[in-house]
Amino acid sequence: MTKVAVIGVGYWGPNLVRNLVENPLCSEVVVCDSDTEKLERILRRYPSVRVTPEAAEVFAAPDIDGVMISTPPKTHFDLARMTLERGKHVFVEKPFTLSSRDGQELIDLARARGKVLMVGHTFEYSPPVRKIRQIVKSGELGQIFYLSSTRVNLGLHQKDSSVLWDLAPHDLSMFIYWLDETPTEVMATGKDFVQPGIPDVAFVFMRFGSGAIAHIQVSWLAPSKLRRTTVVGSAKMLVYDDTQNIEQVKIFDKGVSYQDPTTFGEYQLSYRMGDIVSPRLETYEPLQAEVTDFLESIIHGRRPAAAGEHGLRVVRVLEAAERSLSNSGHVEVLEPEPLAV
Amino acid sequence: MTKVAVIGVGYWGPNLVRNLVENPLCSEVVVCDSDTEKLERILRRYPSVRVTPEAAEVFAAPDIDGVMISTPPKTHFDLARMTLERGKHVFVEKPFTLSSRDGQELIDLARARGKVLMVGHTFEYSPPVRKIRQIVKSGELGQIFYLSSTRVNLGLHQKDSSVLWDLAPHDLSMFIYWLDETPTEVMATGKDFVQPGIPDVAFVFMRFGSGAIAHIQVSWLAPSKLRRTTVVGSAKMLVYDDTQNIEQVKIFDKGVSYQDPTTFGEYQLSYRMGDIVSPRLETYEPLQAEVTDFLESIIHGRRPAAAGEHGLRVVRVLEAAERSLSNSGHVEVLEPEPLAV
Amino acid sequence: MTKVAVIGVGYWGPNLVRNLVENPLCSEVVVCDSDTEKLERILRRYPSVRVTPEAAEVFAAPDIDGVMISTPPKTHFDLARMTLERGKHVFVEKPFTLSSRDGQELIDLARARGKVLMVGHTFEYSPPVRKIRQIVKSGELGQIFYLSSTRVNLGLHQKDSSVLWDLAPHDLSMFIYWLDETPTEVMATGKDFVQPGIPDVAFVFMRFGSGAIAHIQVSWLAPSKLRRTTVVGSAKMLVYDDTQNIEQVKIFDKGVSYQDPTTFGEYQLSYRMGDIVSPRLETYEPLQAEVTDFLESIIHGRRPAAAGEHGLRVVRVLEAAERSLSNSGHVEVLEPEPLAV
Amino acid sequence: MTKVAVIGVGYWGPNLVRNLVENPLCSEVVVCDSDTEKLERILRRYPSVRVTPEAAEVFAAPDIDGVMISTPPKTHFDLARMTLERGKHVFVEKPFTLSSRDGQELIDLARARGKVLMVGHTFEYSPPVRKIRQIVKSGELGQIFYLSSTRVNLGLHQKDSSVLWDLAPHDLSMFIYWLDETPTEVMATGKDFVQPGIPDVAFVFMRFGSGAIAHIQVSWLAPSKLRRTTVVGSAKMLVYDDTQNIEQVKIFDKGVSYQDPTTFGEYQLSYRMGDIVSPRLETYEPLQAEVTDFLESIIHGRRPAAAGEHGLRVVRVLEAAERSLSNSGHVEVLEPEPLAV
Repeated sequence: MTKVAVIGVGYWGPNLVRNLVENPLCSEVVVCDSDTEKLERILRRYPSVRVTPEAAEVFAAPDIDGVMISTPPKTHFDLARMTLERGKHVFVEKPFTLSSRDGQELIDLARARGKVLMVGHTFEYSPPVRKIRQIVKSGELGQIFYLSSTRVNLGLHQKDSSVLWDLAPHDLSMFIYWLDETPTEVMATGKDFVQPGIPDVAFVFMRFGSGAIAHIQVSWLAPSKLRRTTVVGSAKMLVYDDTQNIEQVKIFDKGVSYQDPTTFGEYQLSYRMGDIVSPRLETYEPLQAEVTDFLESIIHGRRPAAAGEHGLRVVRVLEAAERSLSNSGHVEVLEPEPLAV
Repeated sequence: MTKVAVIGVGYWGPNLVRNLVENPLCSEVVVCDSDTEKLERILRRYPSVRVTPEAAEVFAAPDIDGVMISTPPKTHFDLARMTLERGKHVFVEKPFTLSSRDGQELIDLARARGKVLMVGHTFEYSPPVRKIRQIVKSGELGQIFYLSSTRVNLGLHQKDSSVLWDLAPHDLSMFIYWLDETPTEVMATGKDFVQPGIPDVAFVFMRFGSGAIAHIQVSWLAPSKLRRTTVVGSAKMLVYDDTQNIEQVKIFDKGVSYQDPTTFGEYQLSYRMGDIVSPRLETYEPLQAEVTDFLESIIHGRRPAAAGEHGLRVVRVLEAAERSLSNSGHVEVLEPEPLAV
Repeated sequence: MTKVAVIGVGYWGPNLVRNLVENPLCSEVVVCDSDTEKLERILRRYPSVRVTPEAAEVFAAPDIDGVMISTPPKTHFDLARMTLERGKHVFVEKPFTLSSRDGQELIDLARARGKVLMVGHTFEYSPPVRKIRQIVKSGELGQIFYLSSTRVNLGLHQKDSSVLWDLAPHDLSMFIYWLDETPTEVMATGKDFVQPGIPDVAFVFMRFGSGAIAHIQVSWLAPSKLRRTTVVGSAKMLVYDDTQNIEQVKIFDKGVSYQDPTTFGEYQLSYRMGDIVSPRLETYEPLQAEVTDFLESIIHGRRPAAAGEHGLRVVRVLEAAERSLSNSGHVEVLEPEPLAV
Repeated sequence: MTKVAVIGVGYWGPNLVRNLVENPLCSEVVVCDSDTEKLERILRRYPSVRVTPEAAEVFAAPDIDGVMISTPPKTHFDLARMTLERGKHVFVEKPFTLSSRDGQELIDLARARGKVLMVGHTFEYSPPVRKIRQIVKSGELGQIFYLSSTRVNLGLHQKDSSVLWDLAPHDLSMFIYWLDETPTEVMATGKDFVQPGIPDVAFVFMRFGSGAIAHIQVSWLAPSKLRRTTVVGSAKMLVYDDTQNIEQVKIFDKGVSYQDPTTFGEYQLSYRMGDIVSPRLETYEPLQAEVTDFLESIIHGRRPAAAGEHGLRVVRVLEAAERSLSNSGHVEVLEPEPLAV
C-alpha cells in the first residue's frame, strides 16, 4: 500500500486526487496547494485526505512514497527534482519540463536514485490510442504515409506558455507512441493574437526518418472543439475523433496503388473503396490506468509505460518547434532518438 | 444572344455544356474535344450542340463569340491566347495558368483587344462564399485573426500537377475574395507519396499585410471528404462546411477579450459564449451564376466578377507555394497586389 | 430497341425522361403533359424527344412499346388501364393506385394481355436497400425483432393525398422487400394541421406474422430532413440513413441475450457490444437500374423486380392505414398475402 | 442547514449522494441501502457520510429532515409514505409511483402533514428543457402542432417494469411542462422481445385539448443512443438533441402557411425557410439545481418546482399507456387535469 501526495489542485489536480482516493493500491492521499481555498474544496469532497499548503512538508514527510506534480509547467522541474532528491518517486504532468536539459537532469537523477519517474501522457493509456498503436503495429494500414491532427477550441489561454506547450504534447506523445520514432525535422508557424508574446494559434510540420510526415494544428481561438487525427497508410486509413462518444476510431479500407508505367509511359492509378469499420474499444478511464501504473511501478520497482524518457522526447520536439516558430518557420533538425524504452 | 464554344469535355466540361444549353442568353453551343468518344456522349445528351474535334475550327468560326476552356491546366495559356488573338471572349477554368507571366500576358492581351477574360473561380459565385464575404465586410466578426481550411479526400490524382494546383485554388480564391488582400508571405510543405515528383499532400501557411494569417491543408490521400473552413475574428467566429446539405455556414457568437494589466501586473481574459446562427442561404447553382456572368459580360461589354486578375492573384500564390514546397518550406515573400478590381 | 412514352413531367417525370434519353436500350422517347410549358422545358433540354399534350396520341401511337406514368396518383389507374388496353407495357409511379381493387384490376389486365406491369418502387433498386435485404436474408441480424422508420421534412404538401400516401410507400415497400411478408395488423394515427382533411403528420404501427413489429413516422411538417430506418434483430442491429453521403448503412454488432432463470428465479441478461461496420455499397443510380429493368422486361418478356404485385401489397397496407387513421387508430386486420413473387 | 438521507444507492442514488455532499445547504448525509457492499463503496468515496442498511433507522432518526428515495419503483410508495408519516420531507425518483391512487395518497398525506413532496423530474431543471419552455411560452413557435420524441438505446432492461415506465417519464414530464396541459387521449403499442411480459419497445401517441398531438418512441433495443425531440409550431420549429455536447437546441425559422382558396378553388401554400439559431444555454448541472430546490423547499417551507403533482400527472399517462399497450393500442381517454401548480 502506497502513500501519495498531489501537489497542485487547480484545473487538473483534483482528477488525480479522485483517482488516488478510489484506488485500492493507495492507502493515503496528501494534497498540497498554496491556495488554501482549493484545499478546503478538496477536503469537503474527500474528508479523508491530509492537506497542507507547504510543499516542504510533503518532501519532509517520511511516509510519503510518491508525489504527483500538477502545478504550472514552469515549476515542474524544481518540484520534481526536490521530490527525487528526497528519495521519493515522482509523476510529472505534461509538459514534462520546459527544457530538454531539465528533462535529462530529472531522468539522470531518477536513475541514480533508483526511483520511478513518470510523465502524465494520459493519452498513452487511453483505449482508442492504444488500439490505434496496435493497428499501426499490425501492419494493417501498410506503410504510414502521414498523420494529421487538429486540436482546437476556445480557451483556456495560459499565462506563461504558448498553445504549443499546452495542446501539442497530446498529439506529439501519440505520434511518437504510434510510430515508435521521433521526428528528424520540425517546423512551426503561428501567431499571438490575444496575449502579446504568447502564440494562441500554431501549425507544426514534422518529418520522420521512416519517410512519414505529420502535421498538428493547435488553437485556443476556435469556434468549436475539434480533436481529430487522421492516419494515412499505403493500405488503409484511419480517423480518430476524440469528441465523439461512439465510433471514436474508424478504419477505412481505402487505398490507392500506383503501377509503374509499362507501356507508352502511361501510369496507372487504382483506387480501392471498401468497408468502414469502427472497432470496439475498451471502456476504462485512462486516468485510472495511468494512476494505477504509477502506483504499481512504485510497488514493484518497475518502469511505468509513460516513463520520463517519453516526456523528454516530447519536450525536445516542443523546444524545436518553439525555436522554429520564433524564427519564421525555419527548419529545425533533430537527432533521431533511440527508443530503447 | 451569344454563341459559345466549350473546349474540353472531360471531367468538368460537361457541366459547362449543360449550363450553356439551358441558359436563355446562349443561342448556340459548340463543343470541342480531341476525344471523339466524349463528343458522342455529349451529343447523345444534347443533340442540339455542334461538335468538332478541332480547336482550330472553333477559333476560325466567325460566329462564335466566346470560348470556355476546360482542358488540362498546361494547355490553358495557349488556348486562351489563341482565343483572344482571334478576337473572341474567353473563360479559363482554374488554375488560370501555370505561371504568373502567362497570366499577365493574357490579361494584357484581353485588355488590348477589349475582350472579356474570366477565370472559373466558381466559389466566388456560391451562396455560402458570398454570404461569408458579406459577413466579413460587415465587420460582424471584428478584425479577422486567421483562416484555416481543410480540403481533402481520396483521389483524383492528376498526372501533371500537384495537389496544390488542383485543390488549393479554391481556398486561395475564397480567402482573397473575403479579405480583399493577397498574402505577403507564403510557406508550403508536403510530400509525394503515390506518384514520384507530384506532391499529393500539402500544407500552406500565409501571412497578410492586415496581420491575418491563413492555413490550407490539401490532400488526395484522405479517408473521408472534408471541405471545412474556419474564419476566426476578434468578435465572432465562423465555420463553413461545404460537405453539409444544411447549415453550411455557422456563425459563433464567441470571443475572447484581453484587458491590459491594471493592477499588480495581472491580466484579465474574458470569454464570451453566445448563440450559434446558421444564416439562410440562397439556393441557386453557382455554376449557373458563373456562366450567366460570362454571357452578360460579353453582351454588355463589362468585367465579370471573377476577372482574369482574380486568376492571376491565385496563380502568384500557387507559384510561391510551389517554390517554397520544393525548398523545404522556405518563406516566400510576395509583393502586395493592388485589388483595384 | 424500345420506344417509351412518359406521361407527366411535373416534379419527378423529368428524371424518367433523362434516364430514358441516356439509356441505350431506348430508341425513342415521347413525352406527354397537358401543360405545354413543361413540354417546352423538356424540349429545350432534350431536343431529341417527341412531345404531345394529348395522352390519347400516346395510346394511339402504334410504335410506342411502353408507357411510364408519372402523373398525380388519382389518375394512375385510368391511365395505366388505358395503356394496357392498348396493348402496351406500363410502369406506374408510386403510389401504384388509390385502391387495392384498382390495383388488382391492373394486375389481372396485364396478365390477360401478357404485358409488363411495373411499379415505381425505386428503393427496391437502390444499393443500400438491396444490401440490407441481403444482410437480413443471410441471417446475420438473427431473428428480426422490429423496424422503425422516420421520413420527415418540410413540404411538399400534396393537394389530393395525405402524407401517408406520399411518403409511407417508400418505407412499406422496403419493409416488405426485406421481410418477405406483409403485415397482418395495421394501426395509424396522425393529424391534418395545414390543409383540412389532408393529414400531414402520421404514425403507422404494424405487426407481422413472423412476430416482427414495425413503425413508420411520416411528416410534411418537420424542421429538418430525416430518412432514418433502424432494423433490430436478435443478433445484430442496423441503421440505414439515406441523408448521409457516406456510411449510409451501419451494422452494429450489438445484442442482448436472455438466459432462462436457472436458480432462485434469477434471470440473467447479457449485453454484447462489438464492432460497427459500414459495408461498401455499389454506386449506381437506382433510377437507372429501375428504368433498365422496365426496358429489359419489355424486351425479354419477363417480370420486372418491382412487379405490379409489389405495388398492390403496399396499397393494401396504405388503405388499411388510412381506415385506421380516420377511425382513431383502430386495429385493421389484413389477410397475409402470398409472396410468390 | 439540513440533514438528508438517501435510500437506495444502486445506479442513480450515488449521484444524489455526491450532490448532497457538495451542497452547502446540506449539513449531513445519511446513506441507506440493504446491500452493504454498496454502502462500503459510498464510504470509500465519501468518508463523511453516515451509512445504515436499515431504512427503519432512517425513519426513526429524529435529526433527519428529508429523505430522497432512489430505490426500485415498486418500493417508492411504501418508502415515501413511511417517510411522510414520520414527519419528514420526501423526494421520490421517477417514476413517482406505480399507480395514480398511490400518487394521490402521497400528495394528500404530504399536504396533511405540511411536508415537501417532490418528484425526481430532473429534466424540469435542465437548461435546454427550461429554455424550450421559455421559447414555447413566448409564442415564438406559434401554435404548437406536435411533439415527437425518440429515446432509445441498448439496455438497461429492468426486471420489474417496462420500457414505458423506465424511459417515457422523461418525455412525458417535458411535454406537460412545455405545454402546460395533460393529454386527453393516450394510445400505446409495443412488444416484449427479450423478457416475456416486459415490453422493451413501445410507441405512445397522445392528443391534447389544445389540438396538439405528441408521439414518443422508447426502446431498450436500439443500436445507438438517441435522445431527440422535435417541437413543431405553426410559426417555427425546434429540435432538442440531448446527446449533443453543443447546439442541443436548434430553432428553425421554417413554416408553412395556408391561404384559403380565393379563386377557382385553388389553394395556396407558401413555405418559409429562414435562419437556424442555436441559443446559448446555461451550463449548470440539472441535478444540482434539483437537489438545491429540494433543500430550499425544506428550509423555506415552500413548494418545489417539481412537486408531487407533477409526478402524479405523468403516472396517470403511464397508467393509461400501459392499459392501452396491453389492450392492442385501444384509445384511453383521460380527464384533463387542472394545472394550478
